[in-house]
Amino acid sequence: MTTRTRVTVEPRACMADPQLDVMNFLNEAVMEFPAAVSFAPGRPREDLFDVRGHVQSLDEYVRRVAAIPHSGGADAVWQAMGQYGPTNGVCAEAIARHLRVDEGIDVDPRAIMVTVGAQEAMAILVAGLCEPERDVLLVSHPTYIGITGIARVLGVRVIPVESDDDGLDPERVERVIGALPAPARVRAVYDIPDFNNPLGTSMPVERRRALLEVCRRAGVLVIEDNPYGRYVYDHAPRPTIKSLDAEATCIYVGTFSKTLFPGLRVGYLVADQEVVSSGRTLAEELSRVKSLITVNTPPLLQAIVADALERHDGRLGPLIAEKVERCKRQRDAMLAALAAQLGDLVPTVSWNVPSGGFFLTVTLPFPFGVPELRECAKQFGVVVSPMTFFCVDGSRSNQIRLAFSYVGPDRIAAGVSRLAAFIRHRIAAGDAGAGA
Amino acid sequence: MTTRTRVTVEPRACMADPQLDVMNFLNEAVMEFPAAVSFAPGRPREDLFDVRGHVQSLDEYVRRVAAIPHSGGADAVWQAMGQYGPTNGVCAEAIARHLRVDEGIDVDPRAIMVTVGAQEAMAILVAGLCEPERDVLLVSHPTYIGITGIARVLGVRVIPVESDDDGLDPERVERVIGALPAPARVRAVYDIPDFNNPLGTSMPVERRRALLEVCRRAGVLVIEDNPYGRYVYDHAPRPTIKSLDAEATCIYVGTFSKTLFPGLRVGYLVADQEVVSSGRTLAEELSRVKSLITVNTPPLLQAIVADALERHDGRLGPLIAEKVERCKRQRDAMLAALAAQLGDLVPTVSWNVPSGGFFLTVTLPFPFGVPELRECAKQFGVVVSPMTFFCVDGSRSNQIRLAFSYVGPDRIAAGVSRLAAFIRHRIAAGDAGAGA
Repeated sequence: MTTRTRVTVEPRACMADPQLDVMNFLNEAVMEFPAAVSFAPGRPREDLFDVRGHVQSLDEYVRRVAAIPHSGGADAVWQAMGQYGPTNGVCAEAIARHLRVDEGIDVDPRAIMVTVGAQEAMAILVAGLCEPERDVLLVSHPTYIGITGIARVLGVRVIPVESDDDGLDPERVERVIGALPAPARVRAVYDIPDFNNPLGTSMPVERRRALLEVCRRAGVLVIEDNPYGRYVYDHAPRPTIKSLDAEATCIYVGTFSKTLFPGLRVGYLVADQEVVSSGRTLAEELSRVKSLITVNTPPLLQAIVADALERHDGRLGPLIAEKVERCKRQRDAMLAALAAQLGDLVPTVSWNVPSGGFFLTVTLPFPFGVPELRECAKQFGVVVSPMTFFCVDGSRSNQIRLAFSYVGPDRIAAGVSRLAAFIRHRIAAGDAGAGA
Repeated sequence: MTTRTRVTVEPRACMADPQLDVMNFLNEAVMEFPAAVSFAPGRPREDLFDVRGHVQSLDEYVRRVAAIPHSGGADAVWQAMGQYGPTNGVCAEAIARHLRVDEGIDVDPRAIMVTVGAQEAMAILVAGLCEPERDVLLVSHPTYIGITGIARVLGVRVIPVESDDDGLDPERVERVIGALPAPARVRAVYDIPDFNNPLGTSMPVERRRALLEVCRRAGVLVIEDNPYGRYVYDHAPRPTIKSLDAEATCIYVGTFSKTLFPGLRVGYLVADQEVVSSGRTLAEELSRVKSLITVNTPPLLQAIVADALERHDGRLGPLIAEKVERCKRQRDAMLAALAAQLGDLVPTVSWNVPSGGFFLTVTLPFPFGVPELRECAKQFGVVVSPMTFFCVDGSRSNQIRLAFSYVGPDRIAAGVSRLAAFIRHRIAAGDAGAGA
């Protein structure tokens, strides 16, 4: 058979937006410079993943389920995991219990939809809630590219709301909502309050309450995305926005990618709002969209989640203690290396001190874009993410995001040393004034 | 904590379309009438799923992969399955081999994207190819509700092209394309040529060639959805449209839901078209959309697919022989029961004889909609699908779809007997003239 290249096609015009390809770009940069230290991808280290353990534990999990009356026995339980299942999933009770004991979030399992990673939850929320061309999604800014990317594909307008050192500012949110002329309608505000991606900030509790109040009054939903909240290093975990939400203003998005392992691809959304027309929860109503995207989340992977949670009475703590401790050590190593290598350049060069999560922000006295990424990787052996990658408006050209989640302490010291060499080289070359 | 029901929301207006809820409706009807025989859901029988066997085989699969030089050993292979992976998947080579040996489709693995079931492939194709408000998707009609549903959510206009006893008619497709006024543009034609869902028809080979030619000339893509092609009973498998496609006019959508098990949620698309602007395959280009919906398909489930295919040199035959034989017996049982119970009413009542797949069509002398579905389930103990469920225009009100894939031969006989009782009851009540 000949190669099939005669008919050619172009995808939709919006697909050419380079923002849609940031994740691929970062991965490719890492592959292009294999000897470089990579602070680019925000992923956990795989040496603590117990994938085989979780898979082998399924046999025992099935025995436990099969012991429940009317379960039909072990063969039936295995077979049921092979069949089509309920659109919104089968491990919602285990997740509801986890949310109650770990997060102080008390919701009916019918308000939970299990999704193929948190990303599918975002796709479902934007597709199910936002009318293209009319509805507007506010995002804390800079922001996770998965939310702005899917909004772009779905034709939903995004308005950025600039974050400060404490994350999203509710007063700014209120002003942006108030300034928007009809018939545009702000449908929701998206944020990662706990250890923001990309900034590394954590929102103070007063702001969480204020954001809820602003949005409640305006009839706007808060979408709280919380992948990193369990990775807390310097203080007690702050209450999630959802746990403070007495009036169903907030939709919560969770994931097991950073607590169990990302390849699991199991996330969820909590939408306990009542849909007036049907009397059902918003999560139940959104099952119509879920059924048209992935039909249902693979039951085998939901079983891994249910099994892991059940074995620890709903608590993730025992499962992730070592991962959190490791990530804290890596953060400490990065902060120590930054102080040692760049301390004399403060405040020309500066960085924040995240109290949890995977990321921190470095502010430079010169712009750092794709050319700098390439030069830094090729000549200096370290890959970092320009902050502009996470901006819808090309702002923050003088900042970079460093992920300390993936590289061990020794490599972190080496990588920061290389980054410092690049920064000094650029400053010496006279770039210091360009954007300082 | 109080219940959170004060703030209420409505999803997008298009979500109220009952067509978006057909799958849930059918499942609920089945649950509402547990004693009824259900010919509604088009699902395989789970007693032949070897879920546990596939899971247990992963250990041996990992050992095989770990024996490959530079794989890093078994621990590294397990850990890699836990990490984020390439957007388009890691089992494309195994699928490419399967397509070559089983389907005569010869494509580069770079033209394959592994998806979370075939449904995600459809979501990605519509979102990535069709400009809302401008591009038009033609669908053979009646059709699979997953394609019209996702088009609806994504704001893409669907035009139905009526099928006949041989499925989609290429001349009709050509006429519809020719009649569409600019700036509307037909982007693709969707069909299930092999054992159509819902009709049960199979497209003759000449029509397959003619459809390719019509679409190639018009610059329109063919989307060939092939979940049922391996379930062939009465003749040699007909060549897939993709296997006849020398000039990349066709995008092929496959799934392992009916051959391995549906809970696996692994499907794929083959898009070997060249994207002019990038020089990459369309499948590679569409990874931008995939990364914004599910990031990547769970590697553990891709490993189950790769393992199963590798153990049989890429052939599905040995894995599905018993399933196909069983389904053929069920089709035979249904045809025998229809002849025995309703033969005297032909041609007032009639049905087609599918040569494969999961479904057949019965034509009645009266309309069959939701009230009839309920009456038939409640009073007569059998659940069937009104064909209007699969129509975007309310047509075919006198037809029903019967699935013979899920119910064993004895229950099939009982179910058809109950259905015959309902039909005779309705005819006796004088409905015969209503829509005959």
